[in-house]
Amino acid sequence: MFREIREQPDVLRRLLDSGAPRIQEVARQVAARAPRFVLLTARGTSDNAALYAKYLLEIQLGLPCGLASMSTTTAYGARPDLRDVLVITVSQSGGSPDLVASTKAAREAGAITLAVTNNPDSPLAAVSEHHIDIMAGPEKALPATKTYTASLLALYLFVEGLRGGEGSAAAVLPDLAAELIARDDEVRTLASRYRFAERMVITSRGYGYPTAKEAALKLMETSYIPALSYSGADLLHGPLAMVDNISPVIAVVTDGRGGLALQPVLDRLRGRGADLMVVGPEAQVDAASAGFVLPTAGVAEEVQPVLEILPLQLLAYEVTIARGQDPDAPRALAKVTETR
Amino acid sequence: MFREIREQPDVLRRLLDSGAPRIQEVARQVAARAPRFVLLTARGTSDNAALYAKYLLEIQLGLPCGLASMSTTTAYGARPDLRDVLVITVSQSGGSPDLVASTKAAREAGAITLAVTNNPDSPLAAVSEHHIDIMAGPEKALPATKTYTASLLALYLFVEGLRGGEGSAAAVLPDLAAELIARDDEVRTLASRYRFAERMVITSRGYGYPTAKEAALKLMETSYIPALSYSGADLLHGPLAMVDNISPVIAVVTDGRGGLALQPVLDRLRGRGADLMVVGPEAQVDAASAGFVLPTAGVAEEVQPVLEILPLQLLAYEVTIARGQDPDAPRALAKVTETR
Repeated sequence: MFREIREQPDVLRRLLDSGAPRIQEVARQVAARAPRFVLLTARGTSDNAALYAKYLLEIQLGLPCGLASMSTTTAYGARPDLRDVLVITVSQSGGSPDLVASTKAAREAGAITLAVTNNPDSPLAAVSEHHIDIMAGPEKALPATKTYTASLLALYLFVEGLRGGEGSAAAVLPDLAAELIARDDEVRTLASRYRFAERMVITSRGYGYPTAKEAALKLMETSYIPALSYSGADLLHGPLAMVDNISPVIAVVTDGRGGLALQPVLDRLRGRGADLMVVGPEAQVDAASAGFVLPTAGVAEEVQPVLEILPLQLLAYEVTIARGQDPDAPRALAKVTETR
Repeated sequence: MFREIREQPDVLRRLLDSGAPRIQEVARQVAARAPRFVLLTARGTSDNAALYAKYLLEIQLGLPCGLASMSTTTAYGARPDLRDVLVITVSQSGGSPDLVASTKAAREAGAITLAVTNNPDSPLAAVSEHHIDIMAGPEKALPATKTYTASLLALYLFVEGLRGGEGSAAAVLPDLAAELIARDDEVRTLASRYRFAERMVITSRGYGYPTAKEAALKLMETSYIPALSYSGADLLHGPLAMVDNISPVIAVVTDGRGGLALQPVLDRLRGRGADLMVVGPEAQVDAASAGFVLPTAGVAEEVQPVLEILPLQLLAYEVTIARGQDPDAPRALAKVTETR
């Protein structure tokens, strides 16, 4: 897991250098079909990447989006009318039978289908009309890390392509990613805070919300700490009651409108006496109990998620080591999850 | 909270007797506009009711659906093209500023807008083209109970109306709800299992998944027990690692295809030594460590969620009492949550 976390700058660079033209071409073909609505289908880490794409598509393109409830197709046999609908299925392995079945059904129902995977030879790539290879190289650790950021970047480049852009905001990411990963000593110090944590709450808003969900999943599958993730607004609608002065809270604060919209939530959390750790701009970290400062100068809000998750992947790794567990071999999990 | 839980049979009966014709009329008007897609907008408990409507719309009507990410509109100013799109906003109070703003923006963007609220005089009802009153009467307890089941039933009747049905499967619900609520002694015994629980996992699949999410929310906002809810398939994609033989798991098992699709997950949970409590049919309860038997003979799977949540509302109430806390006054919450 640690090795694959450290590969990410190179993975991002490879995708920008060698993968972008092909992604632009796929985007051109899809744009020509003028989809009216987008359904995103994924599970686990890939579902968090799909959620990022939902924000991009809605904000940058004004395309209404939904996350598919897969069981409506696989368990209940629903056959919706999917003309004018772009169905994007995100899967690292491209091998889970339910994803293959629901994508096949979507294509038969008239959808434009696009698979985003790390395996161009997978069954999912085969049943989809279009395919984007995230080119992350074989991922061996059970907790997905480099395939997550590669999926984010591939989806960003695809959405940019749909709107006729070049995705130039992503050019800064490989170097900044390398700088962040080199700061693993800082993360190790932060990890000691959570050595004995019995639960955690992770929150964000807007573009940072997928990061909060992915950080929670990473912590759960490696350290086994129950980590609840909420959008800041949803946190106020109930779960806030659960936060007290022994509850560690991690807030992912983007530098932009999502971060601004999160401010009232951060104030409420501080008012509840929560132990607040911030991953975000320097001023936000200074106002919290602890944190990890992200570079934000010249980094567009919509590409910040590719960087935000890096210290949180390292945190999951370091907390797990501190607790005497093996992050490379979480109990009960397999790399290709065969759900139906 | 206890009084409002006990009002539910009457609330359901009133909605069936007096509310149904008006809901049928709204459904007729919306059906005449032939929406191609549906976006559902809500927060907290209402978001779980919206998720139930998503399953109904996709399975019963084949209409592709999405749950709105509200911040794309309220924080980022996205203005998607919503022609042919039905936007359903569910809110008990009809008063949260972000829901009002996003519904107004949706209407301006060409959407057919429908508000489902407990307050026909609310700002949300005023900005929506159509309105359904769930007629639950004033809800005073902070944890929403009767407005949840009333929203489920109203949404069921609406979707039935869209497809030209009468919703006759709902006729059995008031009497069965009364029978379930009378079994509160059974729930009190079950509650003692969770007196000292430090966390819980709640899972289901298909129509029962919104019940799992709502039960988790209810437990968190009353007892403050961190309760993580996952669809069975998502549980296998990572969070399963967190479940061990001291983790209580509650499974909501519908009698139907959702319950069938959950079976492999229940087998995996038993294999992990989890303490499994089942809310569902008798045979499913018999195979678990404990449970609460739901009546299923003659109850269509799509209306079972209205009943499934009742013992879980009672469980949240009884666990909270057992822990010496006040379920009527969760710390840090207000009845109308003013998120923006």
